[in-house]
Amino acid sequence: MSGGPIHDERGALIALAHAIEPGDARIGALIDTWGAEQVCERLRAGQIGVREQSSMQVRLARVDVDAAVASAHAVGARIIDRTDREWPTQLDDLGATRPLVVWALGAANLRLTALRSIAVVGARAATAYGEAICRDWCSELAEHSFTVVSGGAYGIDAAAHRATLSAGGMTICVLASGVDTPYPRAHDALIARIADEGLVISESPLGQEVRRQRFLTRNRLIAALTRATLVVEAAVRSGTTSTANAAMALNRPVLAVPGPVTSVMSGGCHKLIRDTDALLASRIEDVLEVIGELGEFSAPAQQRRSIDDLTPSQARILDAIPARGSIGINDLVIDSGFSAADVSGALAVLMLRGFTDEGPGGWRLAGRA
Amino acid sequence: MSGGPIHDERGALIALAHAIEPGDARIGALIDTWGAEQVCERLRAGQIGVREQSSMQVRLARVDVDAAVASAHAVGARIIDRTDREWPTQLDDLGATRPLVVWALGAANLRLTALRSIAVVGARAATAYGEAICRDWCSELAEHSFTVVSGGAYGIDAAAHRATLSAGGMTICVLASGVDTPYPRAHDALIARIADEGLVISESPLGQEVRRQRFLTRNRLIAALTRATLVVEAAVRSGTTSTANAAMALNRPVLAVPGPVTSVMSGGCHKLIRDTDALLASRIEDVLEVIGELGEFSAPAQQRRSIDDLTPSQARILDAIPARGSIGINDLVIDSGFSAADVSGALAVLMLRGFTDEGPGGWRLAGRA
Repeated sequence: MSGGPIHDERGALIALAHAIEPGDARIGALIDTWGAEQVCERLRAGQIGVREQSSMQVRLARVDVDAAVASAHAVGARIIDRTDREWPTQLDDLGATRPLVVWALGAANLRLTALRSIAVVGARAATAYGEAICRDWCSELAEHSFTVVSGGAYGIDAAAHRATLSAGGMTICVLASGVDTPYPRAHDALIARIADEGLVISESPLGQEVRRQRFLTRNRLIAALTRATLVVEAAVRSGTTSTANAAMALNRPVLAVPGPVTSVMSGGCHKLIRDTDALLASRIEDVLEVIGELGEFSAPAQQRRSIDDLTPSQARILDAIPARGSIGINDLVIDSGFSAADVSGALAVLMLRGFTDEGPGGWRLAGRA
Repeated sequence: MSGGPIHDERGALIALAHAIEPGDARIGALIDTWGAEQVCERLRAGQIGVREQSSMQVRLARVDVDAAVASAHAVGARIIDRTDREWPTQLDDLGATRPLVVWALGAANLRLTALRSIAVVGARAATAYGEAICRDWCSELAEHSFTVVSGGAYGIDAAAHRATLSAGGMTICVLASGVDTPYPRAHDALIARIADEGLVISESPLGQEVRRQRFLTRNRLIAALTRATLVVEAAVRSGTTSTANAAMALNRPVLAVPGPVTSVMSGGCHKLIRDTDALLASRIEDVLEVIGELGEFSAPAQQRRSIDDLTPSQARILDAIPARGSIGINDLVIDSGFSAADVSGALAVLMLRGFTDEGPGGWRLAGRA
């Protein structure tokens, strides 16, 4: 029923999702003010003051909501709107640009799955280095029950999905096309597997192909769905950084993995760390510390055995202990010029910190005969 | 003349430099209060309230200032005190821990040479990656007339000195031992070459061997002498970070070079970037921007050709241009829903930014037929 009646708010949201591009803040703001049904009516009547009104009207007139719902059902997808219990409420942080509805393929509950999630994104032209880090860390994330969210693209995205699935973890693929029209085609099998074992979602209606702009709006969805965004590799001029920017705009932490300064594919990560609030992540612990619950993880304290932490007198007494062999306390007192009590106190600290131990012939450097 | 008279302030500073360890803030503070001659007299009289007074007295009694000056002369070294015109006044930023005097080998003027200088330091067990970056960047620094200051050690230090010399640049080697007793011995030839073409300096008297504590005090001297400290590679628990800490304590910028997260020798750099104010340096321009005079260098703007910088309407119009072939303005107006004037304006911006150009058949993506 082309241009048929729109029954309710949900129907209106589904209809509008077919008529406007994802992330249109102007229409989003009108929906927040009037509700989706009103916006539909006014758009039909040509009363919405946006430039693209006429093309929106044409597209709206072509929508058949019942048919759209039936098509989703036919491909095994469901349409989740903001009144559904499965709606991930963190998407509301997007304000007027939040998705109108989300198409989802997969048995898992989107809201629950995305509660404890992280975006892992990066270059399509990833290097072996980036893909190896990505695989290692996604296995760890899966082991700690984090859902890995990515975009199904070549390179880092695919490595993230695959490693998470291999580790028995949960992964969500957020597409810039309709969930029945996955892009790239070469990942049909991977994306089908994600739909089987995880979730494939999109805010673009069925049958929609990717467009340049839709990658950017999709990236903001990845950022909004997750607790933090981890950029594994990215060139300086790349779309990957748009996910990072979206995350920062939402006050979600961004982490970036450094790499060789000679690698173009680490250039975007270095730029993020240098020029923005992005955090440097050189160990998975750096990531877990940021995304874990309070106190769930804390970066393991670097074992404290640096001479920089010693007081000058402790350092001098350590200095007076020979590289080989042992030395008695009396000789240490003479050599160092400190009192016997001071030397004993310093030796105790040095021993506790693992610098020295006491052998049969006196004090010696730890680990030496 | 063992324990002979000390003629003047300079003589007193030279004498005290033989009696106390470098960087002793207690004696430094007393000198600032009473002057070095007074401190010498009181130390001889046992009136200095420090624990090591007796061993200091013993060492002071053994100093022959005239002989020390003659010895320096004999090895071609000069002794620079804080009243000399050659004294690098930035060392005064060290306050009570500034050196009493500095021994110098080499024809160049220390003050002038150190005015425009940078510390380049790092791991002794450097990797081929770190040494390659170090060589490249030190050549660039030499080309831009920066003096490279380092510690003459294995690994990054030696690579920094060598690359700077090869590029015809100026380099200063700051030793933890006396300038006539260079450490490590394996670098005798390198350090002799630095003395010929640059400067070798130390605050330890002639004949003094390295001691653990002296490496730390030497590191603060490297940090104080220079505009900034560049850490090329460093393990997490390493002495290299003491130079970085000293620089930060003096409010001198610290830069660290990232590397593969799998490399132990980049771990200290990553930790500096993650946990301190150290700046990430992935290009020599990042370094030059920090150490150059105001406006002398500015990091070259990344060529702006990121779709992230486009307005939504520009992005949509760019999106409507086919991947292959061309499209006329009229078709763009229809496809995009924008007015002809808006489309023309957006096309002009897109062309200026290098995204599109106009061919015989209309508008097309830049660089496409």
